[in-house]
Amino acid sequence: MDPEEKSGLRHLTEDEVEILPDFPPGPLDHYRKQATFDWKKLRIFVEGEDLLKFKMSIWKTMEADPLFEQKSYSLSMDEFRRVTTNRVHRIKDYNFLTEEVIMGDPRKYIVLLVALNHYDPCLMIKYVVPFQFFLSSLKGLGTQKHNKFIKMAENRQLNGCFGMTEVSHGTNTKKLRTTATYDPATKEFVLHTPDFEAAKCWVGSLGQYSTHATIFAQLVTPDGEQKGLHAFLTPIRDPRTMLPYPGVIVGDMGEKVGLNAMDNGFVLFDKYRIPKDNLLDRTGTMTDDGNYVTPFKDPNKRFGASLGSLVAGRVAIVNFCNSNLQKAIVSAVRYSAARKQFGPTNEAELPVIEYQLQQWRLFPYLCASFVLSSFGDLVIREYMDFTLRLMMGEDRANLADVMMEIHALLSSAKPLCSWHAQHGIQECRECCGGHGYLRAAGFGQLRNDNDANCTYEGDNNVLLQQTSNWLLQLWAEKKRNGKNRIQFSSPLGSVHFLQDIDRAEQLSFSAKSVQDLLHPEPILEMYQWLMCHLLGKTEALLQSHLAAGSHPFTARNESQVFHARTLSLAYIEHYCLLLFWREVKEKSAEPSLIAVLEKVATLFGLWSIEKHLATLYEGGYANGPEAAQFVREGILLLCRDLKKEAVALADALAPPDFILNSAIGHSDGEIYKNLQATFYQNLGVFERPSWWQEMVPKVVRSKL
Amino acid sequence: MDPEEKSGLRHLTEDEVEILPDFPPGPLDHYRKQATFDWKKLRIFVEGEDLLKFKMSIWKTMEADPLFEQKSYSLSMDEFRRVTTNRVHRIKDYNFLTEEVIMGDPRKYIVLLVALNHYDPCLMIKYVVPFQFFLSSLKGLGTQKHNKFIKMAENRQLNGCFGMTEVSHGTNTKKLRTTATYDPATKEFVLHTPDFEAAKCWVGSLGQYSTHATIFAQLVTPDGEQKGLHAFLTPIRDPRTMLPYPGVIVGDMGEKVGLNAMDNGFVLFDKYRIPKDNLLDRTGTMTDDGNYVTPFKDPNKRFGASLGSLVAGRVAIVNFCNSNLQKAIVSAVRYSAARKQFGPTNEAELPVIEYQLQQWRLFPYLCASFVLSSFGDLVIREYMDFTLRLMMGEDRANLADVMMEIHALLSSAKPLCSWHAQHGIQECRECCGGHGYLRAAGFGQLRNDNDANCTYEGDNNVLLQQTSNWLLQLWAEKKRNGKNRIQFSSPLGSVHFLQDIDRAEQLSFSAKSVQDLLHPEPILEMYQWLMCHLLGKTEALLQSHLAAGSHPFTARNESQVFHARTLSLAYIEHYCLLLFWREVKEKSAEPSLIAVLEKVATLFGLWSIEKHLATLYEGGYANGPEAAQFVREGILLLCRDLKKEAVALADALAPPDFILNSAIGHSDGEIYKNLQATFYQNLGVFERPSWWQEMVPKVVRSKL
Repeated sequence: MDPEEKSGLRHLTEDEVEILPDFPPGPLDHYRKQATFDWKKLRIFVEGEDLLKFKMSIWKTMEADPLFEQKSYSLSMDEFRRVTTNRVHRIKDYNFLTEEVIMGDPRKYIVLLVALNHYDPCLMIKYVVPFQFFLSSLKGLGTQKHNKFIKMAENRQLNGCFGMTEVSHGTNTKKLRTTATYDPATKEFVLHTPDFEAAKCWVGSLGQYSTHATIFAQLVTPDGEQKGLHAFLTPIRDPRTMLPYPGVIVGDMGEKVGLNAMDNGFVLFDKYRIPKDNLLDRTGTMTDDGNYVTPFKDPNKRFGASLGSLVAGRVAIVNFCNSNLQKAIVSAVRYSAARKQFGPTNEAELPVIEYQLQQWRLFPYLCASFVLSSFGDLVIREYMDFTLRLMMGEDRANLADVMMEIHALLSSAKPLCSWHAQHGIQECRECCGGHGYLRAAGFGQLRNDNDANCTYEGDNNVLLQQTSNWLLQLWAEKKRNGKNRIQFSSPLGSVHFLQDIDRAEQLSFSAKSVQDLLHPEPILEMYQWLMCHLLGKTEALLQSHLAAGSHPFTARNESQVFHARTLSLAYIEHYCLLLFWREVKEKSAEPSLIAVLEKVATLFGLWSIEKHLATLYEGGYANGPEAAQFVREGILLLCRDLKKEAVALADALAPPDFILNSAIGHSDGEIYKNLQATFYQNLGVFERPSWWQEMVPKVVRSKL
Repeated sequence: MDPEEKSGLRHLTEDEVEILPDFPPGPLDHYRKQATFDWKKLRIFVEGEDLLKFKMSIWKTMEADPLFEQKSYSLSMDEFRRVTTNRVHRIKDYNFLTEEVIMGDPRKYIVLLVALNHYDPCLMIKYVVPFQFFLSSLKGLGTQKHNKFIKMAENRQLNGCFGMTEVSHGTNTKKLRTTATYDPATKEFVLHTPDFEAAKCWVGSLGQYSTHATIFAQLVTPDGEQKGLHAFLTPIRDPRTMLPYPGVIVGDMGEKVGLNAMDNGFVLFDKYRIPKDNLLDRTGTMTDDGNYVTPFKDPNKRFGASLGSLVAGRVAIVNFCNSNLQKAIVSAVRYSAARKQFGPTNEAELPVIEYQLQQWRLFPYLCASFVLSSFGDLVIREYMDFTLRLMMGEDRANLADVMMEIHALLSSAKPLCSWHAQHGIQECRECCGGHGYLRAAGFGQLRNDNDANCTYEGDNNVLLQQTSNWLLQLWAEKKRNGKNRIQFSSPLGSVHFLQDIDRAEQLSFSAKSVQDLLHPEPILEMYQWLMCHLLGKTEALLQSHLAAGSHPFTARNESQVFHARTLSLAYIEHYCLLLFWREVKEKSAEPSLIAVLEKVATLFGLWSIEKHLATLYEGGYANGPEAAQFVREGILLLCRDLKKEAVALADALAPPDFILNSAIGHSDGEIYKNLQATFYQNLGVFERPSWWQEMVPKVVRSKL
């Protein structure tokens, strides 16, 4: 171990940072004073003092370190990569995650990643690949003989990455075509890429950085039998020269929409030989003489087991999306409270937050930020609990129910959170007008980076099908059993509504006034009916396709739009609302917090169910004008009501200004002073460019 | 005139370009062969042979000129600006718009801009600022004495731009605070910026390029009276040195979300003196001794007249948005037809265009592309016709009706088109998965550039209010007249439905099967009812606010969401559908085209009205399940039906591959070959970066 690493860099400790500093007085005071609650108490209620301290110690350490200085201009892709690589190592050097820290609260593992994402999603992803994706693949898929590699990766003796996707196949992993053929003569596997379409691609950190990769390939026995996808620890580059080994054609995929500090790579193997022991052989191993041995009878199960470790990614992504949305909404709310435009008279201009339109465009996303963050916290807790129980030796079968439910929740939550972030960032950008279009406002980069969350670890629309498939399976089971109700194991409570289908199906819209809708409960009831309705409709449609002779694959595909897809979204919207409201009540917050958080929950609920109004009518839950009128009126009433709370709510979500890094979202609300400072700091702001002569008007030039 | 300009560069003529070349055989043949119509005929039908030839001559000229080479990587902002500046001049040198060309068909003026936008929105906007915005301001606001400046601008003896927006005021132009105080002693205006908040900003081409700017400022007479906003031709930089004049503090605003070849600038004037004659004095002039003289009595009217020329911008923007959406949808449809993933069996993978979800996500935008383009063409024609009639000396008052209607249409069409483009590009990006996230796919830049269209020339949500205000005014007039119907002048036919309110209000959903909905007419009827309903509801809400004592300004603001805003959108959706279907029928296309375009119109219509379903129920137009079921079933039926047409429809919209510039959208459909070529052409794709030693694993490094 080199001395530098041993000594480490000292980071700020949790006791050295102030977690809830007061804001400087300024233009936002007007609204801050109107709030009916103490934002500091809300912040603690939402995040927990301990995790907040941990996060702040990371952020403040970064702020004090010049390596993390935020620039007012974009670096070249090459320089951005260089700086980010160094930042990753600096984070590692700070050693925030000692064994003691993790043991004290394993959630801090993911909280660190979220804190890095808050600073820059590129830093997070560059950190995650070697220290999470790669390491997990070794730990999850390898056996004892691979421990030395785990140690090497942890000590930074090698740079690792994780390669699954190929050029022509991503989602359909069963069609991956890279092969690893065993050669008993030399006790080696021969990795081979038949053509460019089978090249591994989108492999994070493979483009330039990695010396090793976990590569998924079809294992082929010496007699030519395919044994399915297996993972191989594959040397890519010589760590001393960073040049690829012969037989490895590896390159960088070039620029992307965002996340450009990440060097996504592609690789083709040309009969490239690796030692037999580089097979990560937990799910199947090869004897020296070429016999394949596996504990799994069913190749599908073997495949499933080897992919299990991927699910963890979605826990993290949900939280990254939430962090992206938070940053956008904090900036937009603060800007809206400080920016004035028009008014009843030309003299008295109003802050734009006073306008119904602006409230309606922003506040639902502000509320979604709270509601979805609560879900994000839950899955971290549940996932960590699950992992711990596994480590403690609990049988995986015992945990199957909770895992299944988490999986169904995550498969719809990843789409919901990534879309809400993507659409919310866009809305925030537009709500801040021209100034929102400045790089310095931060929305552009947020949107470009967040966009990847809609696709990776499973395309959103494809993922949603995993949720609906599970729900339909439960539904069919329930229906098959007729009136003899069977109990579902729903450790997280997401399908409790199915216990009482009859009641849920009989529900109808009964509010007598908009007031009746201004609580989470009636909205949750609407969702219960909606889910039953969509389950019934989707199942009926599926059956009709099957009865007409459709292949089950086709029948499922033809039952997505307005059916299974909507079902999955309704399910997760319902659950997020249910959970949030339960937490608010159970965590016994003080009355002022409960009061405002009930409004937050209700606005999120009404805004979400509003998109399903037509289906409520279509299915007969609602008749007449009231349902649509009350829901919509409720949204606008709550928007008006939350106007006085919005800035304080944003404060309770906001990272420090250094992390928020937005000229228009600064906590002091001095939007114009900050814009001026930003403009004046632009590179060469007042200078002619070096090629100024090419701008000299043509005729003038010819005369000079 | 310098000799270079005189000789000019020779561009390809319309006769030298093939406008409808065949596509190379390849993976898209499968679907191309299934189409029921000839894409070439559709192309001609949609664009007109003459305009298509003109466009192709521009594009092919650019393709043949190395200056327009498309790079596979992003240039630095500085280099991007340099290249774009040179490209603007090259376009000017080619002199596509001779007087003869314009006289032959004045629409070509805007078609050139759209063709440039297709290549790169930055090129278009850099071209537009000096040669459109600036010139129009001189022509529209100046008088004879300013002709010499017009000539200078046309001859490129000066670089002009147009400055209105200030740091703290954009939409509310009446609050602009830059002043121009007349000093009779020297016969000069003294331009002054009181503080940074009043600095002009977002001025395109001001950051680095402009030598002159049309600056809007409050005219102040020597006795201190404010005469409202006037335009002043203001020298900014010495054309020989490109250095600003003393008293002008001008700088570049730095990076933006997109459009970074444009140097948006800010400027503060420090008691900066310009000659009296630099006042563009069509709406009001100053005598030497300091008396202000104007033909307008009402300062609001004066202000209105001086802004009239801005409306033209929206004609262009609508078409730019359409061109952005076209590029995205063409790439996404072609990719979806070539990309295979999953299938009923593991062997038979299906092109992803076969999936209901993919169809539903893409085809409505494909249809919207046709429908909205038809609207874009109309406003070009109408606007040119209007301009011509003005030039011919027709009284402006005679044209008021058509101008009012165009204004109402554009105030809602700009939002509709820019949002459809923005959301459509996002959907296309996601539909193409990871590969859609590559810079080389083109979606990222398109989205980032298009985003500005949602804001400039009027924030979308604010603009929509101009439409609803007008409609509400007509409605009130109509209602006031009770049963005695008055006729509206609606030269473009957008409010003909108001002629027969009684009938429209009595309509209700009457389709007996989904088949009844598969035509544009019943959808247009639904919209007619919807508009009447929303007009009535919005008016009632307004009145109730007023009755409760609200200020009219407040009452209007509180009647936007779910009311006035929805009304404006319904109005323009209805009109676009009406117009498109009318054109299809009237232009007597051949039956095969009418058949497919009816489907295009209907899918656009159903998809648009689907978002209003809840309101159809709320208002009692619909009852029971059928309305929602039929509309949604209709959407899916048409999606399935259009699957075989989609590639040919995209072909009919597609610019040449050079202009489309997408690795996954190439007309040959060879997505993997093109991706490979793209990867292999990336800068330094197979190389170590210069800083490779910083990537050497830490422990290895310490041992070396």
